[in-house]
Amino acid sequence: MIDRINNNLQIVLGSASPRRKHLLEEIGLQFISEIHPIEESYPEHLTPYEISEHIAQQKASAFQQPENNKLIITADTVVAFRNSILGKPADAKEAFEMLRLLSNNTHEVITGICLRNATGTHTFHAITKVTFDRIDNETIYQYINKSKPFDKAGAYGIQEWFGMIAVKHIEGSYFNVMGLPVQQLIQKITQIINI
Amino acid sequence: MIDRINNNLQIVLGSASPRRKHLLEEIGLQFISEIHPIEESYPEHLTPYEISEHIAQQKASAFQQPENNKLIITADTVVAFRNSILGKPADAKEAFEMLRLLSNNTHEVITGICLRNATGTHTFHAITKVTFDRIDNETIYQYINKSKPFDKAGAYGIQEWFGMIAVKHIEGSYFNVMGLPVQQLIQKITQIINI
Repeated sequence: MIDRINNNLQIVLGSASPRRKHLLEEIGLQFISEIHPIEESYPEHLTPYEISEHIAQQKASAFQQPENNKLIITADTVVAFRNSILGKPADAKEAFEMLRLLSNNTHEVITGICLRNATGTHTFHAITKVTFDRIDNETIYQYINKSKPFDKAGAYGIQEWFGMIAVKHIEGSYFNVMGLPVQQLIQKITQIINI
Repeated sequence: MIDRINNNLQIVLGSASPRRKHLLEEIGLQFISEIHPIEESYPEHLTPYEISEHIAQQKASAFQQPENNKLIITADTVVAFRNSILGKPADAKEAFEMLRLLSNNTHEVITGICLRNATGTHTFHAITKVTFDRIDNETIYQYINKSKPFDKAGAYGIQEWFGMIAVKHIEGSYFNVMGLPVQQLIQKITQIINI
């Protein structure tokens, strides 16, 4: 499946996230990275999954029209809790507040993905429900001080020690919580390109 | 939380699985490994989760009575599909048959855990439902030839490239599918030892 994609497409990952790169490398996908920074903004009335798709589309629009056989992948991951969005925390105080909110509660991690080739774009999203156990303040402080999760929406990485002891239960794709629903992405690429 | 366990207990992991060791190392738990091989067997009438707990208990029974402050952790992971158990595949043919069964279906990964200290034992289990996408034979052959998943119940590793593109959805703990429900384990240790 991956071989066929590698033989037929030139993949461009429009993301600076080391986690996304790592996931694609793990499954053996060949790709180059190319980033065109945008100012991430969205209309206020959008729901969380619409926001993730909107920003993924904005990121794809920053590229020039791709040539044949080229496929641009852009993505945006948001954390939604009680219909509001938790972005990347500005500082330790904000990270602490986010993790206190998530403690002993269920939130949603949503990744919007935009696939753009010469003939058009295809946008979709994946939702994973994540349930945290009750986490004590000491553990939260320790994580923020050690790991400085300021590049992560919702202030945590599920694959880090904090995620490993905080997350009680998930429903959906694990890799989506890391930033890319790998299985769904590969399915969509295969379908769209019809190889 | 982890610091308190490290300061109060001497943990012995009674498992040779490199994945289980890796998971405990990732969360910063201090432990030594000590394995007393047993012949894994169980009464025929047991259900899948009872089997996993039974074997975890057998593994714990192979140790001498632990001293104070010592905690032995043993575990057994089984894959259950339509009420039968998929063990470790004996060869490529069996691995292929298992992965064909799992394709486009939902199975359960169950880890039984036994915690044994000077005062007694505590046994529990975690269940994760795993749903596979439809996987073509070519991809299955490629995985078996490359990765030789003969040490894995159900013939796959969720964290390997095959798992990443095969698994569509999970319900429960991701790390349980890797062999150890880390969050639940830490909770139980904290409760039992009452620190």
